[in-house]
Amino acid sequence: MEIKLYKKEFTYSYSLGAFPTIELLKHRKEQVIKVLVHSSFSNLEVLNIIKEYGKDISIEVNDKLINKLSLKDNVYIIGIFNKYTCLLDHNSNHVLLDNPSNMGNFGTILRSSLGFGISNVGVIKPGIDIFDPKVIRASMGAIFSMNIAYFQSSEEYIDAYSEASLYSFMLQAKTSLADVKFTPKYITLVFGNEATGLDKKYLSKNSIIIKHESSIDSLNLPNAVSIALYQLYSTKK
Amino acid sequence: MEIKLYKKEFTYSYSLGAFPTIELLKHRKEQVIKVLVHSSFSNLEVLNIIKEYGKDISIEVNDKLINKLSLKDNVYIIGIFNKYTCLLDHNSNHVLLDNPSNMGNFGTILRSSLGFGISNVGVIKPGIDIFDPKVIRASMGAIFSMNIAYFQSSEEYIDAYSEASLYSFMLQAKTSLADVKFTPKYITLVFGNEATGLDKKYLSKNSIIIKHESSIDSLNLPNAVSIALYQLYSTKK
Repeated sequence: MEIKLYKKEFTYSYSLGAFPTIELLKHRKEQVIKVLVHSSFSNLEVLNIIKEYGKDISIEVNDKLINKLSLKDNVYIIGIFNKYTCLLDHNSNHVLLDNPSNMGNFGTILRSSLGFGISNVGVIKPGIDIFDPKVIRASMGAIFSMNIAYFQSSEEYIDAYSEASLYSFMLQAKTSLADVKFTPKYITLVFGNEATGLDKKYLSKNSIIIKHESSIDSLNLPNAVSIALYQLYSTKK
Repeated sequence: MEIKLYKKEFTYSYSLGAFPTIELLKHRKEQVIKVLVHSSFSNLEVLNIIKEYGKDISIEVNDKLINKLSLKDNVYIIGIFNKYTCLLDHNSNHVLLDNPSNMGNFGTILRSSLGFGISNVGVIKPGIDIFDPKVIRASMGAIFSMNIAYFQSSEEYIDAYSEASLYSFMLQAKTSLADVKFTPKYITLVFGNEATGLDKKYLSKNSIIIKHESSIDSLNLPNAVSIALYQLYSTKK
């Protein structure tokens, strides 16, 4: 099997760096094809962790392939794995992103979500390729311990997760996040595209605005999501 | 004057894109050298705004220079300006970053700060070049309506702004952000480097932790700063 520079249509992807690769081995070992190690990598502690979690996984020293796949970054460890699909857990809180477009942003959102106790994230298409190595890197490997699922539309999501109460974050909303009581049992925090936000169809009594000064048009998406996650996490315990 | 691809040691920098350039003209017109417009730019509304805010400023159609400066992005408007220095306002809230290392992160932090009413940001050296075009772009031009100042050390900052009460965000802190009452009149929110956080010397009774699950090591820096800014903004009004 010849490993090539990532393209969306591939059936495999890879984790760049030791930390995301350890997360991959910890949580998705059954998907791992092999681990690449650069010959100059000398951190024995990390190598032992990789060998421990990656028992029975082939470890290959291959500087040429690492240089090819890592592009400009300094990368010494790469995990190559078969892509997989997930279902979101029922009866749990979710984050739902309608057409997210920036891979770094999406990875960062995964990391914040996991940090604030939400390990189920839905993506309404179109949207980024969740397995792009840039997503994996920005998530610091958080993606591997989470369930990420695509949906064709918000309707498809609502049909599948009828127990969820959706809270849509939009600048047109009237209710300020600071005033929200997250009383329903299962909360889904919904956010739109970086440039265009959520479509008007999402406006409801559960629409929320994160109030800020008019000196900026809007908050950066991962920052807005993180604020909402924090608020849910710290008020609903 | 020949305009070259940006280097830190230059006395000038530039804003890439219409929106940051309008912010530049609005807030720092006296620093502007000229505005470049691509010949294919046809948004008359935006051109009129630029001409209105940029009265007496030379506007040059120069596709070759725009292509050179804009690198890979699609950019049709560039504002070239002389760098300037600022002092932070006394008797106001501040954000203080000790050695921030990522330009996109820093720009995003500026945008969130301005959005949550803080327009004074200190940077303790070393740290990113605040005038790098990547910072300006990530800030969406927020940088031009703010005061950003460098400090050699935290001691230099504390000497200069003795009225400020410092709240240092660190994983070793005991007080959770959710429990903090921001009672002092002038608050400075302090954050460390992306990889290393704040030095132990910052630990005090005013040190704060943004609690999250142990499933992640730490929050991404702009997300952490935004959560803190939101909490200060929504509890101190």
